[in-house]
Amino acid sequence: MFRKTYGDLKPPERLLLGAGPSNIDPRVVKALTLPIVEHLDPYFMEVMNETVDLLRYAFKTANRLTLPISGSGSAGMESAVCSIIEKGDEAVVCINGFFGERISEMVQRCGGKSIEVRAEWGKIVEKDLVEKALADSNAKAVFIVHAETSTGILQPLKEISKITHEYDALLIVDAVTSLGGCELNVDDWGIDVCFSASQKCLSCPPGLAPITANEKAMNAINNRKSKVQSWYLDLSTIQTYWSENNRVYHHTAPILLIYALREGLRILYEEGLEKRWARHRENIQMLVEGLEDIGLEIYSDKAHICPSIVAVKVPESVRDEEVRRILREEYNITISGGLGALKGKIWRIGLMGINSNRKNIVLALEALKNALKKEGYVKSN
Amino acid sequence: MFRKTYGDLKPPERLLLGAGPSNIDPRVVKALTLPIVEHLDPYFMEVMNETVDLLRYAFKTANRLTLPISGSGSAGMESAVCSIIEKGDEAVVCINGFFGERISEMVQRCGGKSIEVRAEWGKIVEKDLVEKALADSNAKAVFIVHAETSTGILQPLKEISKITHEYDALLIVDAVTSLGGCELNVDDWGIDVCFSASQKCLSCPPGLAPITANEKAMNAINNRKSKVQSWYLDLSTIQTYWSENNRVYHHTAPILLIYALREGLRILYEEGLEKRWARHRENIQMLVEGLEDIGLEIYSDKAHICPSIVAVKVPESVRDEEVRRILREEYNITISGGLGALKGKIWRIGLMGINSNRKNIVLALEALKNALKKEGYVKSN
Repeated sequence: MFRKTYGDLKPPERLLLGAGPSNIDPRVVKALTLPIVEHLDPYFMEVMNETVDLLRYAFKTANRLTLPISGSGSAGMESAVCSIIEKGDEAVVCINGFFGERISEMVQRCGGKSIEVRAEWGKIVEKDLVEKALADSNAKAVFIVHAETSTGILQPLKEISKITHEYDALLIVDAVTSLGGCELNVDDWGIDVCFSASQKCLSCPPGLAPITANEKAMNAINNRKSKVQSWYLDLSTIQTYWSENNRVYHHTAPILLIYALREGLRILYEEGLEKRWARHRENIQMLVEGLEDIGLEIYSDKAHICPSIVAVKVPESVRDEEVRRILREEYNITISGGLGALKGKIWRIGLMGINSNRKNIVLALEALKNALKKEGYVKSN
Repeated sequence: MFRKTYGDLKPPERLLLGAGPSNIDPRVVKALTLPIVEHLDPYFMEVMNETVDLLRYAFKTANRLTLPISGSGSAGMESAVCSIIEKGDEAVVCINGFFGERISEMVQRCGGKSIEVRAEWGKIVEKDLVEKALADSNAKAVFIVHAETSTGILQPLKEISKITHEYDALLIVDAVTSLGGCELNVDDWGIDVCFSASQKCLSCPPGLAPITANEKAMNAINNRKSKVQSWYLDLSTIQTYWSENNRVYHHTAPILLIYALREGLRILYEEGLEKRWARHRENIQMLVEGLEDIGLEIYSDKAHICPSIVAVKVPESVRDEEVRRILREEYNITISGGLGALKGKIWRIGLMGINSNRKNIVLALEALKNALKKEGYVKSN
């Protein structure tokens, strides 16, 4: 069963232009090598406070409850769902891609009734459909994905926020692929709970899920009839470990990942949010134009392209996996295929955080052109 | 709200001789700096397979389902609890410390009935009590902590395993502080589910919870009446991402932490389990003798001292926090205080993984002696 020896790790130097993770900023890598301290060490308490501070900057929020969940983006998603939803609750779940489906599944596992508002994959969810679902139900919350990683769509949120609050529901937003790359304004837009992930536009290692919740959401959590079904992902107790006063041990935080997150957020803070959003917006536009120049068709609705990721159709004459293999093996570039029903039909190209730059755009376009040529692809128009 | 600048991270170089995390092996730190690849990259698939292989070595198991959960040790605990226990199930939960209490809480949050078998903190749980609880109930599982981090006790498991199986229940073991440091033999001892953590005797960063489950446990999971209530911690779906064939994307694994875990396990594999267990056993014995030489009283039942951590009483004449402050600030050494009812009453000194060596023992003892002297402590006998 066991090999005689296990060799040294020798991972290839990939340029990660897929749906995430992105490459890690070298300054963040350095943070990972710093000496570890205990999760209750006074030094770590300072690091935690500064991380929370910087997360508030990134989310554009003053919310007291702002912290990283110790898990992947999906852990952040479940923390939001299970902290708010309990048995018998109704929730409107907007689904226009893979991750909306996941939220709906989680709502149901919490004993909630998921009222699904569906839009075509690759399109945004129209506010009228949300309004209708709210009018026809007694929903406690509306769940919606800001940047659908599976389709490359950026969902407008302001009007949906207004409608959600008219019906006295909470707006809960998945910002996994938008935080730090796409305009997001938690307080101004009236987002009640917002969660994200460390490995996308923050260019940190995967393993943390930043989350923030306002007082209205915390009141909803504190007024539940039953305990949150998950112990590990219960926001009401995790917050006691992350609060500046009267910290209570909850679990051992992934200390090095939090060093890394603090450094990734510091880099964001130094660049400035608005500048960073503009960089992502301009670069994705340049990528989209380059893809169209090759003759490829953009899958994502062009009126709502996400600044951190775009989906493009796989031309009928070429093999999806073979093109991705050529990019990976000959160019050391990773792009992503489609998820679910879109497997084999689209490629997803991400420009996230440190990876959103011109050098990567020309490199990706040239490599893709060469791979397509190898597959016999000829531009049709 | 935001400071003008956030400084460089400059954590102190602590020697971590508390309840965990332990210091990180320098080879493991190096693994954290290697290039990240995507969670579905063929290279990462190899890394996953080797990590699973090495985890089987560490657990002494041939279980197909063996993988690291993407979260802290408590995430591993909840994954075990919520994958097995559903609404209406009865479970015997052995409680002789802080972490037994946590398991009981989780069983209840899953809608299970927790039949608590209590023993004094600092003592083992006697098998007769477990047998009585099994005889009086219809328990689906017995939960027990192998190494109680809160009290420094190593629980014998073989006889409890026998009894548990006589009553046709599953034995589920918390090996957070024992895996890789204390004798543990999942298959031979008949443990059905066993979970641990990366940051204790494996000397890896916190953020992963290795877990293993045998076919009997998997059958119990596959024959549930309801879905596992947690999506993120559902073993039945996580295993599809970790299985060698037909991998299905579940969530973005914390890739760098898995590089680190593979390296930590490789170090364990090179040393050899038996040699490593002996090292931990001999070193804790030397520490215990040294503590008694200073005149301190061991809190943990001396017949069952855990090879990776020991609890010692705080002498009445000295201040708990002040002694720990002196150790931390003057010597850069971390030891842990007591949890829950033991706060202020005990210190917990851990020798885990790379930290279990003679140099650390003499250092800890001399520093502690000096700190106690500063507090006016005089050896009484």
